[in-house]
Amino acid sequence: MKLTVTQENLSKALATVGKVAGGKVSLPVLNNVLLRTDSNRLLIAATNLEIAITQYIGANVQSNGAITIPARLMTEYVTNLPKGNVTLELDGTKLHINADNFHSTINGMAADEFPELPAISDAQSLTLGAAELKHAITQTVFVASRDDTRPVLTGVYCHSHDGGLYLAATDGYRLAERRVADIVEDISAIIPSSTMQDAVRVLPEDCKEIEVMLDSSQVRFLMGNVEITSRLIDGTFPDYRQLIPKETDISFSAPKDDFLRIVKVASLFARESGGSITIKTDVAVGNVSIHSLASQLGENTSEVATKPTADGSVSLNSRYVVDAMGAIDGSSITIGFSGKLAPFVIRSDEDDTYQHIIMPLKS
Amino acid sequence: MKLTVTQENLSKALATVGKVAGGKVSLPVLNNVLLRTDSNRLLIAATNLEIAITQYIGANVQSNGAITIPARLMTEYVTNLPKGNVTLELDGTKLHINADNFHSTINGMAADEFPELPAISDAQSLTLGAAELKHAITQTVFVASRDDTRPVLTGVYCHSHDGGLYLAATDGYRLAERRVADIVEDISAIIPSSTMQDAVRVLPEDCKEIEVMLDSSQVRFLMGNVEITSRLIDGTFPDYRQLIPKETDISFSAPKDDFLRIVKVASLFARESGGSITIKTDVAVGNVSIHSLASQLGENTSEVATKPTADGSVSLNSRYVVDAMGAIDGSSITIGFSGKLAPFVIRSDEDDTYQHIIMPLKS
Repeated sequence: MKLTVTQENLSKALATVGKVAGGKVSLPVLNNVLLRTDSNRLLIAATNLEIAITQYIGANVQSNGAITIPARLMTEYVTNLPKGNVTLELDGTKLHINADNFHSTINGMAADEFPELPAISDAQSLTLGAAELKHAITQTVFVASRDDTRPVLTGVYCHSHDGGLYLAATDGYRLAERRVADIVEDISAIIPSSTMQDAVRVLPEDCKEIEVMLDSSQVRFLMGNVEITSRLIDGTFPDYRQLIPKETDISFSAPKDDFLRIVKVASLFARESGGSITIKTDVAVGNVSIHSLASQLGENTSEVATKPTADGSVSLNSRYVVDAMGAIDGSSITIGFSGKLAPFVIRSDEDDTYQHIIMPLKS
Repeated sequence: MKLTVTQENLSKALATVGKVAGGKVSLPVLNNVLLRTDSNRLLIAATNLEIAITQYIGANVQSNGAITIPARLMTEYVTNLPKGNVTLELDGTKLHINADNFHSTINGMAADEFPELPAISDAQSLTLGAAELKHAITQTVFVASRDDTRPVLTGVYCHSHDGGLYLAATDGYRLAERRVADIVEDISAIIPSSTMQDAVRVLPEDCKEIEVMLDSSQVRFLMGNVEITSRLIDGTFPDYRQLIPKETDISFSAPKDDFLRIVKVASLFARESGGSITIKTDVAVGNVSIHSLASQLGENTSEVATKPTADGSVSLNSRYVVDAMGAIDGSSITIGFSGKLAPFVIRSDEDDTYQHIIMPLKS
């Protein structure tokens, strides 16, 4: 194997794929990236057996070959090289890397020790706007559970409903749902959160459309020259729609930033109560107030002027409310709830594709 | 105590002084900031018994008083308030803080439980350019030792020599020295690194000059409305000047960024050898090369073209060289050494006030 690539392309590709390498110490070759010529391109690939990321870059190939090279060292080395041409030349399992005044030899492992890259066939295929899908992922993925005892909740539920493609995630305490696009296909897949986060992370800047391929056990995101392939999570996602109230007894609208600020301030006094804040609407005064109490440190009450439809109060984890404000689009929000036990619903006044539900704290 | 201040001023002052609070759990009041009216100003102060930071801000004082308030909560609370007026009103040891729609009560501790703020008298006084002193501190303080077994090496040696004021620091493996200004006074003080770092951190943006006051056991930095007072480190700083070679057998000049790059690249292969890289000059070829070797992973050689005065080689910890490059001004450096055991000297070709010495690794 002998070839020349540019430092810029190689460095970017290594940064893109290299991050999934190095998870499983039980199989040392998984610490490595696979480099393999393919006519006038170089394939760079890494996998942790759950997710595989591959990227092709243009290469001036003088002779074909393949090798695996320690991902971290290779990535850091190439990142630090000056811009310009980098020559890769294989000698047994030693890869000579030369660039300008930099001469290195990195010891690799044979390419045939590297796991087979996953294939996907008989797949459904959707083409989605890259910016749109990326935004929908960031609005939902953070809500997914980190607790492996219920694996289905650790993923994002990508599914069709009533002519729309939806992403939904819940950890049992809160739920985020985003309608992404109109579709005719019938889709149902639970995609691991880490795969979703990787897709957002490695999306090339110039990529305008993402092709999502789904078979019964795998998903692939095709993003220009970058591909992510991942297993799906097995199981049935809870029928979350029945939890979203159609109507609420109490509702109010408020500027998002003002509401976020009173929640943040209240949260400072809520540390010893696990983040608990109490939100109260007052029709007569015409405001919504948030109260929090730290027995040792003091207490706080903050208000925003608004016109609630009824009087009521509910206690919530302030962190969940802050997270929701960070995910919701637009400058004005409408909040609905029905007393101390029913779900608390947050929607944007300027975007009807997203809703965020928080379960109250028992108080 | 009742007074009004602006959120902007109070927030900045709390951020400035609050960071030294909270170190000593043995004395709970040290978690607090002291607030005390002083005619038409409010004093905000915190101390950890080694360093005290105080700041005055303008206030509309309606009645005098003093209280101490938990630093972290107070700082975070005021930071999150909207811009505008904040009213502080004391009721026993409860401080009511009101701003716009935000109403809080924070429980304090009586001001007389707060330690006496340190006084300084019969002090020497120097007035120095703020930007100049800040830069000199950042060029030297990072070299100071973090090992408490030799306390004098954990400080920065601020002293006069031959009509100049110098800062010097060493951890026994490397040394940085910066000439700051011409002075006539006779100065000798070892200032704790943490005090130096705090002085840099809290220097107000609009402060052009810093007054440094020194008595036999304390230093005070007066920076506009902010004062830091700290104990000095007791003891005698080593006579480091005898370690700096007047001349070296081998020297070369190189562009700083090019030299930094070959050191960084070499350091990637030097992890298993504790960062050891070997620098070699070659008069015949006309370059300086850096070699590093990782027995498992591979090896690297990188060069920069230059005209060394003689052939030679020396092994160094690459991290120390990277640190030195980050501290030295200008775009071109001259390096001198005298073989494998003598000190390695780095100077800027554009600034003769700074020198950086690294002791070689035995190889």
